[in-house]
Amino acid sequence: MTSQETDLDRRFVLAKAIAQEAGAMALDYFNRRDSLVIETKRDPQDVVSIADRTVEKLIRERVEATFAGDGFLGEEFGHTAGSSGYTWVVDPIDGTAPFVSGMPNWCVSIAVLHGNEPVIGVIGAPCHNELYAAAAGRGAKLNGRVLTLDPTRNVRNAMTGIGANSHVAPEVMADIIIRLLQAGGTFIRNGSGALMLAYVAAGRLVGYYEPYMHAWDCLAGYCLVKEAGGWHHPFPVEGERLTRGAPVVAAGPGARADLERLAGLA
Amino acid sequence: MTSQETDLDRRFVLAKAIAQEAGAMALDYFNRRDSLVIETKRDPQDVVSIADRTVEKLIRERVEATFAGDGFLGEEFGHTAGSSGYTWVVDPIDGTAPFVSGMPNWCVSIAVLHGNEPVIGVIGAPCHNELYAAAAGRGAKLNGRVLTLDPTRNVRNAMTGIGANSHVAPEVMADIIIRLLQAGGTFIRNGSGALMLAYVAAGRLVGYYEPYMHAWDCLAGYCLVKEAGGWHHPFPVEGERLTRGAPVVAAGPGARADLERLAGLA
Repeated sequence: MTSQETDLDRRFVLAKAIAQEAGAMALDYFNRRDSLVIETKRDPQDVVSIADRTVEKLIRERVEATFAGDGFLGEEFGHTAGSSGYTWVVDPIDGTAPFVSGMPNWCVSIAVLHGNEPVIGVIGAPCHNELYAAAAGRGAKLNGRVLTLDPTRNVRNAMTGIGANSHVAPEVMADIIIRLLQAGGTFIRNGSGALMLAYVAAGRLVGYYEPYMHAWDCLAGYCLVKEAGGWHHPFPVEGERLTRGAPVVAAGPGARADLERLAGLA
Repeated sequence: MTSQETDLDRRFVLAKAIAQEAGAMALDYFNRRDSLVIETKRDPQDVVSIADRTVEKLIRERVEATFAGDGFLGEEFGHTAGSSGYTWVVDPIDGTAPFVSGMPNWCVSIAVLHGNEPVIGVIGAPCHNELYAAAAGRGAKLNGRVLTLDPTRNVRNAMTGIGANSHVAPEVMADIIIRLLQAGGTFIRNGSGALMLAYVAAGRLVGYYEPYMHAWDCLAGYCLVKEAGGWHHPFPVEGERLTRGAPVVAAGPGARADLERLAGLA
């Protein structure tokens, strides 16, 4: 085992432990969500609560306690540069809108970049008691079971995930729906992009497309999809681009061409 | 207590018991879904399996054993007329596509009509261990907790469910998306219309619109929404119309006007 593998493995173990601890904390907030004060960010549909902030603080503390030289980017408190070459990229609760509404489709998403590559992706879905975990070269697993994608599935015989938010014009979303349905596809939008990417890795959705997402929404899912044998569009993480939004596209091996067409990449 | 109340109460007790038993059977199939043979119906996205058929047979048997004079309409085996004035309207697994793909968003939906009125609505979501139950004049409950809708929620500060299927042209779906987003709304499509209607009753979604659904998809959810204090568009159940599709629209009290506009009713 090389020194780099050891570094990665130690972070992979920690990422899984943190996802479990953070997921339990988030689930506790979820179970008493009626007492949460809901604030809005960019618009009335962009919500946040103390749960998001407290869970992100927990994750930051746990990373810093073991890997003080690692960088950290979280949705709620922004970017802290590191010196080790590793950067944790975290959405404490992806799917805050379903979360505060009482729907189970939300997750804790933890990625680790090494240089520009997402080498760890861990997504915990506490309402479903599911932990998705992948690391570069080590495969993807769901609750310990190896995930391997079926190449016979495409947009015509499986479901496709889509995402929307107020960064994207209604006409753009409508055009995506039209083209997906005309291609014989059907769509799911459960309210958590990170969880839908985990579902692509698990073969539950055959692909995912959202025209504008942030690194904390997609990098863990991207690592999972790649390690399960799927494909994803590159996400720009160099320098300040790490904190900006970009299109997110992922697919199982039989649906790459379908998703590239849907996203206007082919 | 009048004789009609007694008849209703006895059927309500049975509907809840059947939903639990049928849900457990469906969950067992779900947990070993890799061995199911998936068939298609109208098109490659319209799937069915032995799970749907066996669960519907179980429900039919349980109803017939106690209320032999009741009518029965199920998605898989059609309509049997009755003589008692009561008709059970059942979707054994609503959300078969998520079910066979491994996603948790599916449910067992059981409604009972008295004359033309859905007087019982029971929806079981086994992956989430949730049972939604309502009967005319008796309120709606989720796992025994009374559901009461919040009149301050509307499409601008809450999420709206939408449904799509191959009966509806892509352009029609796209137009719904555009108008909902332009109105400041955001959409969820989890793959089970009945479950999304239960979520309207629980205040998780503020409304639901699907241009074409069948009675077995919507009548249980309609009873739940009404008993929780919400509104629904009437569904035609007279004579042969019971087995045909129609638009389905439901809303919490603060979103009725929003949903009527979205559905082109106002």
